[in-house]
Amino acid sequence: MQNFELLTQSQIEQIHEATLEVMEQIGIDFKYKKALEILSKGGANVDGFRVRFPRKMVEAQLRKVPSEFTLYARNPEHNLIIGGDQHIHVPANCAPFVTDLDKGRRYGTFDDFENLVKLTHASQNLNMLSNILVEPNDVSHELRPAKTIYACLRLSDKCFMGSAIDPDGARHTLQMISIVFGEKEPLTQKPRVIAIPCSLTPLCYDENMLGVMIEYAKAGQPQLINSLTIGGATAPATLAGALVVQNAEILAGIVFAELVREGTPVVYAMGSSCADMRSGTLSVGAPEMSIHNVMAAQMARFYKIPSRGVGTLTDSKTTDMQAGYESMMNLMAAHNGGVNFILHATGSLETINCVSYEKFIIDDEMVGMMNRISRGVQVTQDSLALEVIAEAGPGGQFLDKMHTFEHCRNEFFLPRLSDRKPYESWEKAGAISIQQIANQKWKDILEQYQPPDFPESVDKDLKKYMTEI
Amino acid sequence: MQNFELLTQSQIEQIHEATLEVMEQIGIDFKYKKALEILSKGGANVDGFRVRFPRKMVEAQLRKVPSEFTLYARNPEHNLIIGGDQHIHVPANCAPFVTDLDKGRRYGTFDDFENLVKLTHASQNLNMLSNILVEPNDVSHELRPAKTIYACLRLSDKCFMGSAIDPDGARHTLQMISIVFGEKEPLTQKPRVIAIPCSLTPLCYDENMLGVMIEYAKAGQPQLINSLTIGGATAPATLAGALVVQNAEILAGIVFAELVREGTPVVYAMGSSCADMRSGTLSVGAPEMSIHNVMAAQMARFYKIPSRGVGTLTDSKTTDMQAGYESMMNLMAAHNGGVNFILHATGSLETINCVSYEKFIIDDEMVGMMNRISRGVQVTQDSLALEVIAEAGPGGQFLDKMHTFEHCRNEFFLPRLSDRKPYESWEKAGAISIQQIANQKWKDILEQYQPPDFPESVDKDLKKYMTEI
Repeated sequence: MQNFELLTQSQIEQIHEATLEVMEQIGIDFKYKKALEILSKGGANVDGFRVRFPRKMVEAQLRKVPSEFTLYARNPEHNLIIGGDQHIHVPANCAPFVTDLDKGRRYGTFDDFENLVKLTHASQNLNMLSNILVEPNDVSHELRPAKTIYACLRLSDKCFMGSAIDPDGARHTLQMISIVFGEKEPLTQKPRVIAIPCSLTPLCYDENMLGVMIEYAKAGQPQLINSLTIGGATAPATLAGALVVQNAEILAGIVFAELVREGTPVVYAMGSSCADMRSGTLSVGAPEMSIHNVMAAQMARFYKIPSRGVGTLTDSKTTDMQAGYESMMNLMAAHNGGVNFILHATGSLETINCVSYEKFIIDDEMVGMMNRISRGVQVTQDSLALEVIAEAGPGGQFLDKMHTFEHCRNEFFLPRLSDRKPYESWEKAGAISIQQIANQKWKDILEQYQPPDFPESVDKDLKKYMTEI
Repeated sequence: MQNFELLTQSQIEQIHEATLEVMEQIGIDFKYKKALEILSKGGANVDGFRVRFPRKMVEAQLRKVPSEFTLYARNPEHNLIIGGDQHIHVPANCAPFVTDLDKGRRYGTFDDFENLVKLTHASQNLNMLSNILVEPNDVSHELRPAKTIYACLRLSDKCFMGSAIDPDGARHTLQMISIVFGEKEPLTQKPRVIAIPCSLTPLCYDENMLGVMIEYAKAGQPQLINSLTIGGATAPATLAGALVVQNAEILAGIVFAELVREGTPVVYAMGSSCADMRSGTLSVGAPEMSIHNVMAAQMARFYKIPSRGVGTLTDSKTTDMQAGYESMMNLMAAHNGGVNFILHATGSLETINCVSYEKFIIDDEMVGMMNRISRGVQVTQDSLALEVIAEAGPGGQFLDKMHTFEHCRNEFFLPRLSDRKPYESWEKAGAISIQQIANQKWKDILEQYQPPDFPESVDKDLKKYMTEI
């Protein structure tokens, strides 16, 4: 397997050099006194909020970053290696709206949140939960972190993301995973949660995010150090220039996390794209976002750090052909480019603003297809099939051969939604739309959902903790 | 730029060795006496229809194949280099049915054929015409080759594909391009047309196709030596096994074409996928087809021959989300994998059975997006943008910067169809579907279409030729 790459080695080095120049000469604003003290002590030049990073300091901290790490799930079967040639699929994150064929578009609720946890838990293609699968707008802001973490813990035994909304959210997350996992082994040795603190592009970190980073780093939990540049708006209109801004933000964040706690596992996390220049607003269906996916994976490999990119993002408002091609473009760029942590792998519509139940299911099928491609091709004496080729011979056929029977189930992807019937059969069967099929599918999954076991005493402790917030 | 690759070098060599074994020991049926004579004279072991190829013979003929070649258009601006790192986009080929939002699904007519020639001519993303853009069912079989070639010549000045339906079709094509181009320079020095003869999988060539190959090779015109294996039906269910069958057929065809005329430009042409094992019929929306795209490009590079793969193929019956994701998957696999000649780049629905006017336009947008990605990233002092990054500074913005103004038009892909508006604006504007937008677009293009100049005397000669068929 050879990843798709857009940057040459020399281009990567030019980006790296330009990044160090930005970090050393322009600097990055860290708007939190405590962070400034940590950075100053670590060797940075601090002037007001502005922090300038000597080249040697950056290089020294980058050497402390693990090239991959394990995230431990409640069910060890769902433990995840983040890095290497792994693709981890994580559903949509942070949308305020939700939509489905029956009830239409509306603000997300905690019910929706729980449904999406269940759908993720039941998926064979999604490896873990995101943090805000949809915004639970009917829960008070201060209770959201605890309630969502509780739902993730109770309704699934897969890995999940911690709250990164503010330091309180981080603390609640850490307290709750301590209640569940902390007794037996120190969390620092078995990371249980990963959070996604974000820079404020261009070239800033605010107090909230720095507080979040400190909390998770101190607890030895991994973090996705995230930059979302919008080329032409919050970053240069050139892809190379936007990449330099993104790279400077991410490296600065990594240096900071390593200073808080040496060896903190981090991911080079990118959510960058470009502005639609007619409106100045973010477009995630732009091919430039797929280019960023590929570039981020390359930069992360250059630094020997796991990468985070995007999955099935689209600007479309509905599960139409545009949603199909934009979603596949971004997801396939992530796969072919070698992105490790694919956030927004299912469900997202409307430039990250809405989650669709039907799209969640359809995207899951796309993830299955990409997994089939990434699984690659086996070449063995058996798979080369010379015997059966001779047996069939010129003009022969393979449908009735034992070799076909033995291999077809494992070799070929079996779609759950995609229609392969001839036109006439499809029409005769009612010309059912893929949305209708997906609609039935998510209802079936929710109906058949079984919660994984959870110790009652721990549940009691979690509930007690939540009443005290 | 580094292509996405699924096979390792050692796997490629194993495929190659297994292929030579099939060619040498099992052999391939060539059901045409004249072809058997040519092959026997060229060193093959002929036994009835069965032809076995000594390893040395295959290797010797492969060395004669040009690694790239130029196809000359009537308008030199549309000349095409086939090979290297070029991606040539060619619309759908061979569908009997056509559909559009207004008239629905029906058999294609010559009117439809002409419309699709015009849409291809007007496209900025399609580089040349296919041969049977849609089957003109209202034209008699014997007149179809000449009438379609005439339409391609008259309504466009881009390159086009020759008829490969039978040797008569090939001869009409060659006669007509002789009338248009033959006077000044020999066609052998300036190839004007490329045809796509196909093997009969598994491991056969019939008289018709061999006759077509002889005609084009004798005239020095390039050909796409094509194999379409259906894994599990006409080839083994293992991808490696199907690739061996495909490879044996293509290499045998190439050897044959080179024996007819040394140095005949050929393309390693693949249309392979797998069967849907529930029905035993071809699926082109299967991820296995995208894997074949990537593998074909790799095998072709191994042999230093240009490659042909597939573009926006789908099993969907309509321009829905499935059509979007399957089409993008195949097209992007072709791009990321480095396929040179991308057939079915626009318009195809229903497993190659139908061409949609709306999909033709939507797919064209997708080709533009892929071209943007394949254009890659420029890294220069200017694009690294250090000055404007310093000017904006931490917390600044880039929308009003001259650097943004100078670059945004060329750096960012500008969509013609994809909607990037926020939900509310989209709804307010009538929630217009992408199909409706595409529908209006193709009508506008046809209305604004201007035929390129064509010399009247040549037109007269062509018309005279056609009346004499």
